[in-house]
Amino acid sequence: MKIEEKDKLILITNDDGLYAGGIRTLIDIMQEFGKLVVISATESRSAMSQALTVKQPLRVKLLEENDNRRIYACSGTPADGVKLAVNQLLERKPDLIVSGINHGSNASASILYSGTMAAALEGCLYKITSVGFSLNSYSSSADFSGCGEYIRKVCSLLLREPLPDGVCLNVNFPDLPASEIKGMVVARQAMGSWQEEFEKRKDPAGKTYYWLTGNFINHEPDAKDTDEWAIQNGYVSVVPVTTDMTAYNYIDTLKSKF
Amino acid sequence: MKIEEKDKLILITNDDGLYAGGIRTLIDIMQEFGKLVVISATESRSAMSQALTVKQPLRVKLLEENDNRRIYACSGTPADGVKLAVNQLLERKPDLIVSGINHGSNASASILYSGTMAAALEGCLYKITSVGFSLNSYSSSADFSGCGEYIRKVCSLLLREPLPDGVCLNVNFPDLPASEIKGMVVARQAMGSWQEEFEKRKDPAGKTYYWLTGNFINHEPDAKDTDEWAIQNGYVSVVPVTTDMTAYNYIDTLKSKF
Repeated sequence: MKIEEKDKLILITNDDGLYAGGIRTLIDIMQEFGKLVVISATESRSAMSQALTVKQPLRVKLLEENDNRRIYACSGTPADGVKLAVNQLLERKPDLIVSGINHGSNASASILYSGTMAAALEGCLYKITSVGFSLNSYSSSADFSGCGEYIRKVCSLLLREPLPDGVCLNVNFPDLPASEIKGMVVARQAMGSWQEEFEKRKDPAGKTYYWLTGNFINHEPDAKDTDEWAIQNGYVSVVPVTTDMTAYNYIDTLKSKF
Repeated sequence: MKIEEKDKLILITNDDGLYAGGIRTLIDIMQEFGKLVVISATESRSAMSQALTVKQPLRVKLLEENDNRRIYACSGTPADGVKLAVNQLLERKPDLIVSGINHGSNASASILYSGTMAAALEGCLYKITSVGFSLNSYSSSADFSGCGEYIRKVCSLLLREPLPDGVCLNVNFPDLPASEIKGMVVARQAMGSWQEEFEKRKDPAGKTYYWLTGNFINHEPDAKDTDEWAIQNGYVSVVPVTTDMTAYNYIDTLKSKF
């Protein structure tokens, strides 16, 4: 693949692995916008958050190359993949990093555990305009047909008007066909968390082990300006996300205590 | 260990593992405050961010118990450990979660990769007052003697006055002996990132692999209200941290674009 100056260079990744339907949909759509470099694991790396591989070496393999795209398999996490691509694999800084489409919502507190959004945050730390897309369905055969229109809209905007330093986007889709999606809304992250999170079992040797499981609880179900409300009510949510986790509204109170 | 109603119950964890000097220092200090439940891995799980173990079962083993504390080894990440403790192992909700003392700074963007702070954020999602402590030295024989005075001050305050929902604390220590630490300041997270992040090597079979490495760059070295400035200038930094990653100051601009 030859990248000319006029070409937009787009880095694509996800945390469900290269064989997931979500990233395949995203590759098809993003080909309309420029030259693609795709990097991800061959297996799913869900719930990896912004974990990095520091105790083991990383391996990368070029799986496929044509005039429009290169696809790499990477042994690491989504954040590793972005770091490797930006530092070692790309000819130049990409114009856009697009992560997803995740099989499962990354609205509300799920952003904190999300490998998909970690890749976008990683791009953000490199001052590259970045966006994560997620569909509110964990099914491996999820229907992404409603996503295309909004992905085109968001990515057209981002390629025309890059985001400011320190901000990326978290876009979540309701699990609905295109005809039933009511539109796209800019929202804030809902306050919520996961509850009832372990199944205690015995292995064949009689030893106890635990499986993580649970249900998401929206702590503010009536607030209509949140991402969780949006996707539960038929809208696509777009949350601007910051890498700055400072609780600014608590700084003065905390100063008064010490 | 019997926990009476009058006892404070404190959950301790880290991401450097149970044999790290940092958590041993923390256990010694926190025994002054109440009954302790300690949970961590036997090996270091650095840079795990808020990753969760979802594809494998988790194992927990009670390693030690006396009148004042119980120590569990857990096969998972720091966030897994907090979830397991709160859901399965603790008699009641703890009064405080204390994570660390990390061998290495978690100031600035390092919070995004930090397992230490992920444990505090996890506590925060459970509405438990939580704090992470980190020392600006990666040495396994780091000198934690300057930390005790400030850990006592912070934890006394937190047990007396719990934090509001959705806020936890990120406390970072300069790598200095007690006599040279100038005091403690409430700060904001510095804008920064990691650069030059891979060493490319050949394995004995001639195949390429990469080791993650790099240097932290403070993007605003002159700003004196940041955590990074504080620890580089002899102060202990305390940043109030939120689980809400919404970039509120960009919401209106984004609305105007769609």
